[in-house]
Amino acid sequence: MDRKTSLENNKPNSLISSFHALYLPHIENEMQKAVEPACLMGDGTFYDMLAYHLGWSNTGQQTSGKRMRPLMVLLTTQSTGGIWQHAIPAAVALELIHNFSLIHDDIEDNSETRRSRPTVWKIWGIPQAINSGDAMFTLAHIASLRLAETLSPQQTIKAYTIIQKTCLHLTQGQYLDMKFETDKNVSLEAYWQMVEGKTAALFSACMRLGALCSNLQPQQEELFASFGKNLGLAFQAVDDWLGIWGDEQITGKPIASDILEGKKTLPILYGLQQNGEFAKGWKKGNLQAHEISSLAKQLAQEGAQAFTQTYADHYTQEALAALNAANPQGEAGQALFELAQQLLRREA
Amino acid sequence: MDRKTSLENNKPNSLISSFHALYLPHIENEMQKAVEPACLMGDGTFYDMLAYHLGWSNTGQQTSGKRMRPLMVLLTTQSTGGIWQHAIPAAVALELIHNFSLIHDDIEDNSETRRSRPTVWKIWGIPQAINSGDAMFTLAHIASLRLAETLSPQQTIKAYTIIQKTCLHLTQGQYLDMKFETDKNVSLEAYWQMVEGKTAALFSACMRLGALCSNLQPQQEELFASFGKNLGLAFQAVDDWLGIWGDEQITGKPIASDILEGKKTLPILYGLQQNGEFAKGWKKGNLQAHEISSLAKQLAQEGAQAFTQTYADHYTQEALAALNAANPQGEAGQALFELAQQLLRREA
Repeated sequence: MDRKTSLENNKPNSLISSFHALYLPHIENEMQKAVEPACLMGDGTFYDMLAYHLGWSNTGQQTSGKRMRPLMVLLTTQSTGGIWQHAIPAAVALELIHNFSLIHDDIEDNSETRRSRPTVWKIWGIPQAINSGDAMFTLAHIASLRLAETLSPQQTIKAYTIIQKTCLHLTQGQYLDMKFETDKNVSLEAYWQMVEGKTAALFSACMRLGALCSNLQPQQEELFASFGKNLGLAFQAVDDWLGIWGDEQITGKPIASDILEGKKTLPILYGLQQNGEFAKGWKKGNLQAHEISSLAKQLAQEGAQAFTQTYADHYTQEALAALNAANPQGEAGQALFELAQQLLRREA
Repeated sequence: MDRKTSLENNKPNSLISSFHALYLPHIENEMQKAVEPACLMGDGTFYDMLAYHLGWSNTGQQTSGKRMRPLMVLLTTQSTGGIWQHAIPAAVALELIHNFSLIHDDIEDNSETRRSRPTVWKIWGIPQAINSGDAMFTLAHIASLRLAETLSPQQTIKAYTIIQKTCLHLTQGQYLDMKFETDKNVSLEAYWQMVEGKTAALFSACMRLGALCSNLQPQQEELFASFGKNLGLAFQAVDDWLGIWGDEQITGKPIASDILEGKKTLPILYGLQQNGEFAKGWKKGNLQAHEISSLAKQLAQEGAQAFTQTYADHYTQEALAALNAANPQGEAGQALFELAQQLLRREA
């Protein structure tokens, strides 16, 4: 997800932006406390690598990400009668896990830039970047332990279990994503299994942990988890759509970049299954810029745009149905609906 | 630690080998259960990478490691009146953490073989190997969750905290170790800080978690942790000694391999500080085989062998003093002393 996929297009007067303004200083403060234990006596570089990735040093505008996942956690807690401050350790843990996975993904994908800056491995080399990702991972878990200050030990253990199972799911999704690069035939079933691990699992965990911090009944917790999972699936379908037909000016990436990069996203898998003109052109490989643009048009003509939109719509409906049933309250509840709409109707 | 550093030289009739025979099937069984959740529907390769690293497939003799760390955990529990079976999840978690760190270390060190077989990255490539290490890491944490079946929730949370802080310590040690490769001046203080993270922290956690599973008083738990830490420091000093003057026939590595590889180990740091003939030769770089052997002799003449031995002896004494004070009971207690002696008086 290198595109601007978060909340960069917040309307200034939206509920989301109010809650964001309310939560953000608390999130950043707790995140800094969570990362500080990495400091070594007399040597600041280890800490600096983590701080740099999190956008706390050498930052221009919007280098830190929008902390979308913490926002999901805290809104869920607040909209279900819980004390959102109590959920901050969970919010921070999930944000650090997201960032750990980005540090490692950037190495695995050979990505040299993230948020318009060089990636950690590009600056400090692959060995140090692998290890700094490992540190971010373990700091996430240490952060989550602070849940014990307000939750019962049993609930804390449950939260910890959710986080760990989410991490396993993430690695499974990442395994599949990398495997697809060389697989000749990727089934749609395998594709959705990958997205479930790589994107939806963490979204789902955000809502589930937010709900857990309000001590909800299991049934309501499941509804929130289902909202998160379906939101993640819809989000990825939208992202795949934008990766081919998104506006270059808004996404900040070249047109049809997913074709250029040979990614096997949803519309491309559809196009390959049709085995028509798009598939012929795509399989030829080594594509020139002018071919990319005409391939994107060809792919739309063959029905891939509508096909992708159908999935995006389907999972969006599933997500909103689950959220309706979960019945979040107050302005925080409205903000959750707003968040879903922003994520799924974005242009970038 | 590519040398045969574990318990390959067990005498068949030693107490260690009896306990090893008793514990091993239980450890392997629980470890297999811990790794199984990585299985993906219809795709066995993700699981296979982990199983391969753990020595469960394509195995010749002694490819799995000797599970030294689980042995430490269970002996500590059994020798302090606890039920060793209850400590198995902790033992398995620490062994998986050790193995996660090996998968990533092999990438970071560009090591192509481990235990006479190609490393995970050498077979499946760096991206998949990074991710499989991440999976091993998270499976370790999931394994530790089973402690809640026999420990109180409070004790379980304490165990997680110990495991997580150990992991942070590991990454700090690894950071320093890699940094030393390009540092011109590495102080002894920084060196021991590195060893404390990279080797001693995990040894210490083994004993501490073993003690925790027996519900020991904090003071006695500290003694066991101190035993583990000092054992780890002594172990590394011995390892550094063997890395230069160890018998090629026994270590399975070329003579003075640490000189060949340009590692900054304890005797080499000593030699560099002397700034004599050894330092001159070493700094020249690009050494030939015949020069290595004479440099190793020169280093001994300059006092590095005695210097290293002094540290090994010092930390051995500290370790044994702590173990004596911790006062482990019965044959399992004797086995802990035996284990320390085997590790520290080994020839390889």
